[in-house]
Amino acid sequence: MADPGTPAPPHRPDAAATATLGELAARFGLELRGDGDTVATGVATLERAGPGQVAFLANPLYRRQLPDARAAAVILRAEDAADCPVAALVARDPYSAFARVAAVFDAAERAPTGIHPSAVVDPSAHVDPSASVGPLCSIAARAHIGPGAIIGAGSVVGPDCEVGAGCELVARVTLVLRVRLGRHVRIHPGAVLGADGFGLAMQDGSWIKVPQLGGVVVGDDCEVGANTCIDRGALDDTVLEQDVRIDNLVQVGHNVRIGAHTAIAGTVAIAGSTRIGSRCLLGGGSGYVGHISVCDGVTVTAMSLVTRSITEPGEYSSGTPLQRNRDWRRNAARFKQLDQLARKIARQPADKD
Amino acid sequence: MADPGTPAPPHRPDAAATATLGELAARFGLELRGDGDTVATGVATLERAGPGQVAFLANPLYRRQLPDARAAAVILRAEDAADCPVAALVARDPYSAFARVAAVFDAAERAPTGIHPSAVVDPSAHVDPSASVGPLCSIAARAHIGPGAIIGAGSVVGPDCEVGAGCELVARVTLVLRVRLGRHVRIHPGAVLGADGFGLAMQDGSWIKVPQLGGVVVGDDCEVGANTCIDRGALDDTVLEQDVRIDNLVQVGHNVRIGAHTAIAGTVAIAGSTRIGSRCLLGGGSGYVGHISVCDGVTVTAMSLVTRSITEPGEYSSGTPLQRNRDWRRNAARFKQLDQLARKIARQPADKD
Amino acid sequence: MADPGTPAPPHRPDAAATATLGELAARFGLELRGDGDTVATGVATLERAGPGQVAFLANPLYRRQLPDARAAAVILRAEDAADCPVAALVARDPYSAFARVAAVFDAAERAPTGIHPSAVVDPSAHVDPSASVGPLCSIAARAHIGPGAIIGAGSVVGPDCEVGAGCELVARVTLVLRVRLGRHVRIHPGAVLGADGFGLAMQDGSWIKVPQLGGVVVGDDCEVGANTCIDRGALDDTVLEQDVRIDNLVQVGHNVRIGAHTAIAGTVAIAGSTRIGSRCLLGGGSGYVGHISVCDGVTVTAMSLVTRSITEPGEYSSGTPLQRNRDWRRNAARFKQLDQLARKIARQPADKD
Repeated sequence: MADPGTPAPPHRPDAAATATLGELAARFGLELRGDGDTVATGVATLERAGPGQVAFLANPLYRRQLPDARAAAVILRAEDAADCPVAALVARDPYSAFARVAAVFDAAERAPTGIHPSAVVDPSAHVDPSASVGPLCSIAARAHIGPGAIIGAGSVVGPDCEVGAGCELVARVTLVLRVRLGRHVRIHPGAVLGADGFGLAMQDGSWIKVPQLGGVVVGDDCEVGANTCIDRGALDDTVLEQDVRIDNLVQVGHNVRIGAHTAIAGTVAIAGSTRIGSRCLLGGGSGYVGHISVCDGVTVTAMSLVTRSITEPGEYSSGTPLQRNRDWRRNAARFKQLDQLARKIARQPADKD
Repeated sequence: MADPGTPAPPHRPDAAATATLGELAARFGLELRGDGDTVATGVATLERAGPGQVAFLANPLYRRQLPDARAAAVILRAEDAADCPVAALVARDPYSAFARVAAVFDAAERAPTGIHPSAVVDPSAHVDPSASVGPLCSIAARAHIGPGAIIGAGSVVGPDCEVGAGCELVARVTLVLRVRLGRHVRIHPGAVLGADGFGLAMQDGSWIKVPQLGGVVVGDDCEVGANTCIDRGALDDTVLEQDVRIDNLVQVGHNVRIGAHTAIAGTVAIAGSTRIGSRCLLGGGSGYVGHISVCDGVTVTAMSLVTRSITEPGEYSSGTPLQRNRDWRRNAARFKQLDQLARKIARQPADKD
Repeated sequence: MADPGTPAPPHRPDAAATATLGELAARFGLELRGDGDTVATGVATLERAGPGQVAFLANPLYRRQLPDARAAAVILRAEDAADCPVAALVARDPYSAFARVAAVFDAAERAPTGIHPSAVVDPSAHVDPSASVGPLCSIAARAHIGPGAIIGAGSVVGPDCEVGAGCELVARVTLVLRVRLGRHVRIHPGAVLGADGFGLAMQDGSWIKVPQLGGVVVGDDCEVGANTCIDRGALDDTVLEQDVRIDNLVQVGHNVRIGAHTAIAGTVAIAGSTRIGSRCLLGGGSGYVGHISVCDGVTVTAMSLVTRSITEPGEYSSGTPLQRNRDWRRNAARFKQLDQLARKIARQPADKD
């Protein structure tokens, strides 16, 4: 049985990379305070890292763990180095430094080149010889799979879709129709790109479907999370500019355009034809009604609802704070009287001091 | 590489339909103001449409684009016709007229009839000879696929499921068990119909699963969005009446019943045994607790939470408006004192005027 | 066509079990008031159950249906027995008693043992001879499928994943990498376990991906709903302790830990590194920011947002009540003035009584 206290087995015990602290410092421009010959074989959390593993300290929440560190080295800011009982790799931004160091030890298996015999590839599709098409994938008419791209098990690439060089569809991804991915796009399992947008018109008391004829265009270096949906445009395309990062279970409606370097947390929903600027941070579960614009550099906190265009950068919120249910009930009931209360206050004399 | 500024390639360059403006006007009962012999070969947005393309103006947000229209014709209301620099097709409801015109040019490929050799079909299943079962589909025991139905690549049709005439499971759809689709139902990729409802009972400190024995019944002309989930009933069925339209990533719990012609936007969640009336519009991200009833003709705005039955048609909302985070923080903190504030006001003398 | 008024066809008409009321009473320790020789062949709702079917009454909302019961017997509390016009099976907790009785009649088909010829199984994977691997599944390198486990159609089990004895992956489930399931875990279609967590660091104006190297560990008897996502940890594992029950479309971020016997309703989202205690009940659509702790025994009502750690058991809420939109608009506008109103009140003289 699974004992949740025991960690999962190491991913690739045979493939572990090694590097000395001196090599890591030189390669990533970090200042080493400690023995450059110490060998590191992996990364771990500050709390769990043992000899041979590199840890990091970025979030101040975890600073209290530093005095007990047993890691080979800790990547941290200069001001934390004095409290570090082991070797330190000093970085201006410890988290991004750690990301690069960790990649050294990420010995992910390389998918085998070629088309798995169980995959179904339409004769009119083009699969680059250096690409990998996994088991039980389906590649439809006129689809194009670029050099080095990986199409993971069970994925469906629909008609007229293009997958750029170095893309990875991890597993069971669906590109429905007219989806065009740039280079180095990574899409996680269950994601659906290019499904019909939700376009309906009422006629004689019944809905008629508005044909969805556009596509989806995804820029270089984007990442799309598991079970996220990005609908095809009604007429024009739905567009993700480069380096857009989207978490799991996010809904992106038809004809939405998302600016470069924007990051979108899980369960966000963006309704049709809305434009999100560049370098925005959309908090988990936040919502965006249709046909509005959010300018560059906007942060929206979790579960906030954006009902109008935002034209100034900054941080925005809606909602009420969490309370004990019995307290919340009393306050929530008063919310329904708020306008009435405000009118009563307005009728009272002003400051009496 | 993908340049997000360049539109995706045309879906079916070889299959483009054509029609004259005169033909379109006659076929759809529109008043033509312009040259009836002009040939249209497609549709596009008002902003992008060029010669040969038909555009439309329905949302007043886009009226400012009308003077610059370069389309072959614009479908619009009579009151906008005077400002239209090109031919006009006058409609009472330009959006539904456009939906019908666009369908003329929607030259979607017809899925080939028959069962793809890579599909796995149980000997006890029935697939109509006019139906299409795509690559890598699995059709289980006693399933029934009706005339003209399309089962897209990678779909799973479970035991005892019925797919009516003219239905389309776009790709990678799962019908788990005892799901029965009417005619012309369209289901988008990743949707799961007929998974077990969330039925749990606590016994001696552990959960025991309440068997989920019902099915899902979906009426004619319904549409179900990508990665949406509709659970099977615990005992009776979960029911969608005819012409219910559901967007992506929506959760419909067990034994929910949704009335005809209701439209449900993305990321809505409806808990078990709740009934939603006919002709309702459920805004994106709105939530519905279990065991309540929402009457016919109700509109709920985005991200509102419905905790009690609604017995009067109309529009309903909850939540607070978006603000700058620093302003929101101050107001949100006061929300926690709201009952106390109200009590203080109540103790003060009334209007002194 | 599907007439939504007609129930779906019975799942397994040939496999119906039977039991007398006397047998059911004895087996489950219930007090029978009525004829022990009456034969039951199934279960149904109180409203629909006819002769031969066992119904139950647990939720007081349905007590009004009791006088019209036509069931073979009704499982109910002692205090309701007097109003029961048919045989009664008296239980302290009618719902859990019903769950056990219903299981008697849940004649779900047993998946056939062995590996379906259309499945693709890596030579280094181990599949127990008593397990079932369905059509079009993909089992990757070094995966391990335990005794009696069922891998439903179209599922993908990635490298180094372990599926414990008696687990069921219903259909089209994805275990991406380093996912380890205990015993008797049930996972519904479309669920994705082990996708990369959302780990990003900003460097020189672009995002760099933080390698996600951990796994997912799921304890015995857990259940994971359709299209739910549970990300793998960044360094340590993401952990579900035993008997955690998760509904559909839920997002569980990397390195989250969820305590035993906690139940999570649909569309909940839990951000990375947050810990949820044991025996918590997380209402539908509720949200949890990252790096916080929720203690044991906490209930959070639907669509509430938890932004800080909770250290005391109890029920918590946020949000505002549903109102008519015209009333809500007035009150919501005042929310933006709430701090100002409170300041004005504070400047006024206190209680004048």
